[in-house]
Amino acid sequence: MEAREIGRLFEKVRANRPLVHHITNYVTVNDCANITLCAGAAPVMSHSRRETGEMVAMAGALVLNIGTLDTRQVEQMLAAGRKANTQGVPVVLDPVGAGATRFRTKTSLRLLRELEVAVLKGNGGEIASLAGAGGKVRGVDSDGVGGKPEQITREYASRLGTVVAMTGPADFLSDGRRTLRVDNGHPLMGRFSGSGCMAASVTGAFAAVSKDRVAATAAALAAFGVAGEKAAVRNTTPYGVRMAIFDELFNLSPAELAERARVRKV
Amino acid sequence: MEAREIGRLFEKVRANRPLVHHITNYVTVNDCANITLCAGAAPVMSHSRRETGEMVAMAGALVLNIGTLDTRQVEQMLAAGRKANTQGVPVVLDPVGAGATRFRTKTSLRLLRELEVAVLKGNGGEIASLAGAGGKVRGVDSDGVGGKPEQITREYASRLGTVVAMTGPADFLSDGRRTLRVDNGHPLMGRFSGSGCMAASVTGAFAAVSKDRVAATAAALAAFGVAGEKAAVRNTTPYGVRMAIFDELFNLSPAELAERARVRKV
Amino acid sequence: MEAREIGRLFEKVRANRPLVHHITNYVTVNDCANITLCAGAAPVMSHSRRETGEMVAMAGALVLNIGTLDTRQVEQMLAAGRKANTQGVPVVLDPVGAGATRFRTKTSLRLLRELEVAVLKGNGGEIASLAGAGGKVRGVDSDGVGGKPEQITREYASRLGTVVAMTGPADFLSDGRRTLRVDNGHPLMGRFSGSGCMAASVTGAFAAVSKDRVAATAAALAAFGVAGEKAAVRNTTPYGVRMAIFDELFNLSPAELAERARVRKV
Repeated sequence: MEAREIGRLFEKVRANRPLVHHITNYVTVNDCANITLCAGAAPVMSHSRRETGEMVAMAGALVLNIGTLDTRQVEQMLAAGRKANTQGVPVVLDPVGAGATRFRTKTSLRLLRELEVAVLKGNGGEIASLAGAGGKVRGVDSDGVGGKPEQITREYASRLGTVVAMTGPADFLSDGRRTLRVDNGHPLMGRFSGSGCMAASVTGAFAAVSKDRVAATAAALAAFGVAGEKAAVRNTTPYGVRMAIFDELFNLSPAELAERARVRKV
Repeated sequence: MEAREIGRLFEKVRANRPLVHHITNYVTVNDCANITLCAGAAPVMSHSRRETGEMVAMAGALVLNIGTLDTRQVEQMLAAGRKANTQGVPVVLDPVGAGATRFRTKTSLRLLRELEVAVLKGNGGEIASLAGAGGKVRGVDSDGVGGKPEQITREYASRLGTVVAMTGPADFLSDGRRTLRVDNGHPLMGRFSGSGCMAASVTGAFAAVSKDRVAATAAALAAFGVAGEKAAVRNTTPYGVRMAIFDELFNLSPAELAERARVRKV
Repeated sequence: MEAREIGRLFEKVRANRPLVHHITNYVTVNDCANITLCAGAAPVMSHSRRETGEMVAMAGALVLNIGTLDTRQVEQMLAAGRKANTQGVPVVLDPVGAGATRFRTKTSLRLLRELEVAVLKGNGGEIASLAGAGGKVRGVDSDGVGGKPEQITREYASRLGTVVAMTGPADFLSDGRRTLRVDNGHPLMGRFSGSGCMAASVTGAFAAVSKDRVAATAAALAAFGVAGEKAAVRNTTPYGVRMAIFDELFNLSPAELAERARVRKV
């Protein structure tokens, strides 16, 4: 993927300021709102079936994050997702904790089955669990992947017919045909709460501006990763990086992103 | 409005430390709690009808914020609001996203109809939508006001018989007779999540210490605006301003507020 | 209690990285997640009865925090607590606002009656209210204790047969036989939202690694208190201390904790 294309997508996020609608968890919801703003998009969070249809109809993307799932929220996600599908609004699914409990695994699979998900983004344990490839998840943390991440990602993407992104020390993403590796980011991003959720929100912002979901996802993960790298220059602690990452993304220019993005085919 | 009066109201918040009860959204609720504390008041958040009556009876103000509304919350707000009305506790309503969905618009109008709201505070799009004056709201952001803000504010306040505050580059507030303009604040306050919600919480703190709701609201918006201006002196980025605004309000003295407040009749 | 033992417990938290499951309020939930991570443990938050059983079975501790209670959450807490009891997972209860409303008081007493709670941790007003010792609570803040804190703590612990910790300018904790006083902490920790909730989360992390709940609770309160003291060295404002406390706990070494902990028998 060309660096120029990554920068161009970021410019488009800033120019279009897409509305990114979220049905998400109550732990990191504020971080999702602020990182969406700092990416250049406009966040909205709502869950009631009385209004998500209208919100989704205005939105450029819908982010579904199951971090604090319950049965009612499943129905809300399905309703919003169906509306998004009929409107052509891309759906980004973050299957937080899939593999840790049957409820999360089953719900993720149900959402993937009943909705047309544009991008499925999870950590190694979550994606490998859903793919049936020996993922290990403890709470909401990945505890291991029983195989090669790029292979699991590509094969699962091919099977699902959607873009699958597996984040980790390196991020892998694929639509089954094209598989990319993103080497941006910093280890401290895994030491505070919410970096995975924020990555999904940024992915929503980018998915809103391009039909090429592989490119959009790669650009989003690179942008968030570069913001993390920059945050880690002056900060050596998790919360320090967390507090700095918002403004580093805000300050990041498309040109600098194009220069610093480390995205390549695998 | 005299500068001395603004400082005096802030002194009273600090001296009385009123309890400000919130039924609010889960996106910015932590910010609402901390800004209430930094204003000098005591926040409490609870929604269950099993206890909001008791909480409201202890409170100096009730803040209703519809940022993540659902049908159950409407009932909770009505129950708490009625209790507040019978106890003489002022109700501050923040109609987040009114105009964006029918549910939010209808619920805001219902709360205004069934409760005695002391202060209605929203952004331009929200207030103009409720007033039927051509407001535009996308998600939770104001996208425009179809008229003169001071005129819409004054006329709507007169019609409702309540204090209406429309925030924006300049804030306008009115009870239909007296109309004030507040020129404090900084553009970066609109670039992070929660500044509108925080302004409502601070308004609750001030409304708790004065029967003159116009003065209380103006003083609150000036105080929060000055805190934002001070936060923007050393910070040029949204999250930086957000992180600094709490302590800037905490450090703000009534005397400095009186000096820096830019409140005038229009 | 020996300083060496306090350091050793902290080492064990870092080595074991226990999963701390939370059913908690939506105001400070993000702070609870991040402070758990900075203590060296792994947080998870979930409330649905469809999955809390599985989550609790993986967990080293269960933290129940009633900060934004409703009737459904009571049932969720009872279900998760029963599972924790059958699995031998220690339960930490933070009775936020007990004494302020009958619902919170009754629910706290019910949880204490129907569950085997390992550690009950509250502020002075909350603990004294539950103990029937003249506690005063306004909203979620302690407004006074009608007696000697060490005596109330010891007697209530003896009566309940659980460890009771009453936090305040000095923290007191007891199992009825052994009573300890912890003199770490800083007054600014009471001026931002969430320090009590965070203390409960850290207590969960420590309770997960020792059957000696008195020692674990004392070590946890000392660790969090030392982090607050260190945060207050360079910060003189509430939100400044709040932002710094996470990384101060992250940076705190077991050796430094052992040196700075001020825990003694009373």
